[in-house]
Amino acid sequence: MAMWQGAMDNRGFQQGSFNSFRSSSSDEDLMDIPGTAMDFSMRDDVPPLDGEIEEEKSYNGGGIGSSNRMMDFLEEPIPGVGTYDDFNTIDWVREKSRDRDRHREITNKSKESTWALIHSVSDAFSGWLLMLLIGLLSGSLAGLIDISAHWMTDLKEGICTEGFWFNHEHCCWNSEHVTFEDRDKCPEWNSWSQLLISTDEGAFAYIVNYFMYVLWALLFAFLAVSLVKVFAPYACGSGIPEIKTILSGFIIRGYLGKWTLIIKTITLVLAVSSGLSLGKEGPLVHVACCCGNILCHCFNKYRKNEAKRREVLSAAAAAGVSVAFGAPIGGVLFSLEELCDYENRFNTSKGGELPDRPAGVGVYSAMWQLALTLILKIVITIFTFGMKIPSGLFIPSMAVGAIAGRLLGVGMEQLAYYHHDWAIFNSWCSQGADCITPGLYAMVGAAACLGGVTRMTVSLVVIMFELTGGLEYIVPLMAAAMTSKWVADALGREGIYDAHIRLNGYPFLEAKEEFAHKTLAMDVMKPRRNDPLLTVLTQDSMTVEDVETIISETTYSGFPVVVSRESQRLVGFVLRRDLIISIENARKKQDGVVSTSIIYFTEHSPPMPPYTPPTLKLRNILDLSPFTVTDLTPMEIVVDIFRKLGLRQCLVTHNGRLLGIITKKDVLKHIAQMANQDPDSILFN
Amino acid sequence: MAMWQGAMDNRGFQQGSFNSFRSSSSDEDLMDIPGTAMDFSMRDDVPPLDGEIEEEKSYNGGGIGSSNRMMDFLEEPIPGVGTYDDFNTIDWVREKSRDRDRHREITNKSKESTWALIHSVSDAFSGWLLMLLIGLLSGSLAGLIDISAHWMTDLKEGICTEGFWFNHEHCCWNSEHVTFEDRDKCPEWNSWSQLLISTDEGAFAYIVNYFMYVLWALLFAFLAVSLVKVFAPYACGSGIPEIKTILSGFIIRGYLGKWTLIIKTITLVLAVSSGLSLGKEGPLVHVACCCGNILCHCFNKYRKNEAKRREVLSAAAAAGVSVAFGAPIGGVLFSLEELCDYENRFNTSKGGELPDRPAGVGVYSAMWQLALTLILKIVITIFTFGMKIPSGLFIPSMAVGAIAGRLLGVGMEQLAYYHHDWAIFNSWCSQGADCITPGLYAMVGAAACLGGVTRMTVSLVVIMFELTGGLEYIVPLMAAAMTSKWVADALGREGIYDAHIRLNGYPFLEAKEEFAHKTLAMDVMKPRRNDPLLTVLTQDSMTVEDVETIISETTYSGFPVVVSRESQRLVGFVLRRDLIISIENARKKQDGVVSTSIIYFTEHSPPMPPYTPPTLKLRNILDLSPFTVTDLTPMEIVVDIFRKLGLRQCLVTHNGRLLGIITKKDVLKHIAQMANQDPDSILFN
Repeated sequence: MAMWQGAMDNRGFQQGSFNSFRSSSSDEDLMDIPGTAMDFSMRDDVPPLDGEIEEEKSYNGGGIGSSNRMMDFLEEPIPGVGTYDDFNTIDWVREKSRDRDRHREITNKSKESTWALIHSVSDAFSGWLLMLLIGLLSGSLAGLIDISAHWMTDLKEGICTEGFWFNHEHCCWNSEHVTFEDRDKCPEWNSWSQLLISTDEGAFAYIVNYFMYVLWALLFAFLAVSLVKVFAPYACGSGIPEIKTILSGFIIRGYLGKWTLIIKTITLVLAVSSGLSLGKEGPLVHVACCCGNILCHCFNKYRKNEAKRREVLSAAAAAGVSVAFGAPIGGVLFSLEELCDYENRFNTSKGGELPDRPAGVGVYSAMWQLALTLILKIVITIFTFGMKIPSGLFIPSMAVGAIAGRLLGVGMEQLAYYHHDWAIFNSWCSQGADCITPGLYAMVGAAACLGGVTRMTVSLVVIMFELTGGLEYIVPLMAAAMTSKWVADALGREGIYDAHIRLNGYPFLEAKEEFAHKTLAMDVMKPRRNDPLLTVLTQDSMTVEDVETIISETTYSGFPVVVSRESQRLVGFVLRRDLIISIENARKKQDGVVSTSIIYFTEHSPPMPPYTPPTLKLRNILDLSPFTVTDLTPMEIVVDIFRKLGLRQCLVTHNGRLLGIITKKDVLKHIAQMANQDPDSILFN
Repeated sequence: MAMWQGAMDNRGFQQGSFNSFRSSSSDEDLMDIPGTAMDFSMRDDVPPLDGEIEEEKSYNGGGIGSSNRMMDFLEEPIPGVGTYDDFNTIDWVREKSRDRDRHREITNKSKESTWALIHSVSDAFSGWLLMLLIGLLSGSLAGLIDISAHWMTDLKEGICTEGFWFNHEHCCWNSEHVTFEDRDKCPEWNSWSQLLISTDEGAFAYIVNYFMYVLWALLFAFLAVSLVKVFAPYACGSGIPEIKTILSGFIIRGYLGKWTLIIKTITLVLAVSSGLSLGKEGPLVHVACCCGNILCHCFNKYRKNEAKRREVLSAAAAAGVSVAFGAPIGGVLFSLEELCDYENRFNTSKGGELPDRPAGVGVYSAMWQLALTLILKIVITIFTFGMKIPSGLFIPSMAVGAIAGRLLGVGMEQLAYYHHDWAIFNSWCSQGADCITPGLYAMVGAAACLGGVTRMTVSLVVIMFELTGGLEYIVPLMAAAMTSKWVADALGREGIYDAHIRLNGYPFLEAKEEFAHKTLAMDVMKPRRNDPLLTVLTQDSMTVEDVETIISETTYSGFPVVVSRESQRLVGFVLRRDLIISIENARKKQDGVVSTSIIYFTEHSPPMPPYTPPTLKLRNILDLSPFTVTDLTPMEIVVDIFRKLGLRQCLVTHNGRLLGIITKKDVLKHIAQMANQDPDSILFN
């Protein structure tokens, strides 16, 4: 600490000794307000007065002008102040405060005139309207994606001569020539071999169809990758890790923009119809969030406030899940049809030859096929999820689990058939009775696999419970969800989305993980012991040039403001961006603000003598309630504060003196360091 | 502010002027550590040194001894330190820190010996074991209550001659004389008239049965009230408001104790069997929480930590809901039987004569009966909930809603039958078709009424969805839940449990309600502008007697510790209870601690010259990371911090000087004041 003190810069030190020379009168000054104008008018000639005096003065001013001390910001908005740069973390507390101020202003004004009342009502109503619009738009897009994907999937096999815009099912819908046994075939639907070589029989036709199928699939996949790469790189993947990060308060410009929306919608159709092993559920959540973000621009309330916009985005994400799974309750309900589809597919294609229950050649070959499918599906899904196309994981991982479950179910069925006298069977399974349901095994397997991938527990059971539509499967589903979470947690603590957040280095503060190390705030704050002193601004002694030098020499996104360098008593915190914009604005508009103008962060700037340059008053951009912790605060508490309050930075004090600063990125780096990870991988660049 | 400064006490002022006299050397002192022992050894002769020096000294000490600075508390526990008085709020941050320290200690020690490893594993396992025990105990108690209530309900009508411990159903279970039409009657079951006047026919027998029924009911109800009043007043009501308050971090000794458990279990049986209009779901949650609390005493991990115990209690509450409703998913699933019961009751008793659908005399009389039942049920339920017996609201309020819903449903059915050509009917309801289901109306009505009473939305829809067991009723249920919440919110913002919390004056900080006023921390903190100065302790200049005087003259539950009175720089916060216990303990055990001993809160107490009384070092009970906000922090942010971090108090600073303190009760009083309520009604006394 001595070294840290020694690093104090010369100017502060000089002022400090000068102060102590004068300070024999400081306690009398505490009792009364000194002649403000006089003391300040001498600023250019004598060093600044003791911090105690200055402090009481500004404090007193704060007390007198308390009724409108928060209004400055609302009344004189400078364009750009209060917005964020790309890849920055938002300040939840500030954003929420701003919205509450706005709301109060509207509510207060609503009593004044009818127009203001209408404005107030429409402001309150705008949230509901926005939700309605998001629901409509994302629902329409999901429907469009569904129809297009159906049509393009069928396009790989053939085309409808009645009208090329019909898919296979619609093409044969009204055909009179379709029979129940062969309902997929009708004269209106032509396979590619029929169109190209006019026959659907024989090896050559099979080769032509196969070739065309592969050609279309490759074309779709190539188009999808190219579109994503050229027009909207953000459109790849499921988007859920990024949305989680954005919802937690991070700015990624363009991630929810119109280009991402357009390209993701188109490429999702292409990716699904190319037959890749991916689901469209995750991407649909991203699409719904894009809709939410774009529609926010129509409403002042949400356009200008990052916190309010995130409220809308989380509702949009729920709408996306709801649209994806066709589920009305809280976005957690898959449509029953989704499951029926799955169950049917496995029942007919793989388990079709099981109604003869003793194992014949059929059962063994089905089990072989299932095992092969399982391996292939796992491999293909892993590779597909790494591709730069829109791809979801829900359906593929459920499919993997369902195959594994059914494999086990069929095995158990055979075991029970041949060994119904075994202890585990004989009490409840008489010979020839239907006591094993392989379909149930598939369902439990799907839940277990999805649980292992995403680490959901309660919501997973609810989803699967909805899927089964009955009470009798709850206990096996709960057991499967718990077991799969335990097993997966033993292999690695993170679910797929959290792992992706970490791999991409997004600044996301995991809410579940406990920080269990014994470090203190002083071990994390900057500056560290041997580093140069913290860069601070003083409340009433720096010129425009001083501040501009500090801005150009550092890259910090904000600076603490103190009473004086030697007292290091914290007044507030000012953001770099706000400071730059305000100084630029003042130089342009405010007459006579030059490099030697003094910047005041105090409530009242003193009257200046003639022939001195005008002062620049910046209290309106000063955050007067910055969060502080002491240097001895355990980091576990600091992490908790950052998580729960959504802070962007926190100042560190010792016995009332400012010592350093901890930012969200410092916290994330520290957590990574403690977990033996590379702390530099944690920043999104 | 001048007045506030003027209120500074004489001693501080005197010291202040003396300090400033000496302070010309203070900046040199900042650069290096002065000879600590020398400065301090002169304490009794000269006034205290400048705050700056003292501060650096203690800070430096903190830096050097940083590796074990948090361990003092664990290593030297004084019995009683860290516990809470009745009707006090717990400090979540401190409790969680203590648990993490304990956990770290066990984990570190586990590498040292096999015994420590076993201890570590059993500690990790104890949570699961505790949960299992809670589940078993509360499940058994719920079963016992159910069986006893059945038997005692039947006791009002008669008794079984085969064995008095059989209820009506079990008595007739194995009887050969029971017919399907008259299955309630068997020779083994004797009504009171059969036992007393040997006949079951005629007016006199009816009167005897009626009289006995009323007698038993009155006896049960009287017993219930008496037991609650004499043995456990805390056993009355549903207990949910109190459990909500306790879970939020309040201490109510005995509320979850063994007497409450025993009396609540017995009186719940009595209350249910007396036939009062109440449910046993809420009380069962209370019973399960009592089980959780009592079982916590068997595990060190949970007995000693209020925060960990609350984790167990919230799991126990879920177990209680699960036991009450027989629901395995997240305690939100009523048993399907519960509903079937309800549906059947109304179908058979009231709607039985509806299979002739055109309105006959039967339908009109059924509607009359329903309307009368509705009014009576509402009145009776309101009065019952005010009685000092265990009583739940779920089932009675659902019954009210179900009756109202069925009334509307029957009305609609008649309307559709007679006016099937009306626009609203004719598109989907052909003549004679069964297009109105009064049972569905009853179900939606039950959901709407329960939603209005408790203000649940999502969980309500899930519960009702589980009850119906099918997808088709989700949309009407969602519409009903939303509408009932809107209507109820328009009439009053609070649900029944929140209203009870407010009426009882529990210190509960509602998480949902936004604090929308424009007050600042300085408007809420104590002392206010014209009040006497904040009572503080100094870190190294007060004697045991000084501190004891402050303790006896004030009732505050804690005191800030500052560097010196004149600098008002905050060092930490010490709790009154810990202070009293520590001083008592030191006077008893530590040789020579007398009234003139100086209390040190610094890291190192200086070596004392001979013949001075030994010092008392109390840094181990000092909270070195108290939460602070600035005086200009908007109260909306302060309220948010209290809510999200579970604080007990927060200190208010201005430019690094301590100004005042805000406690949770101050926050609650302020919220009440802003809502035009009596702030003094908010405190639980």
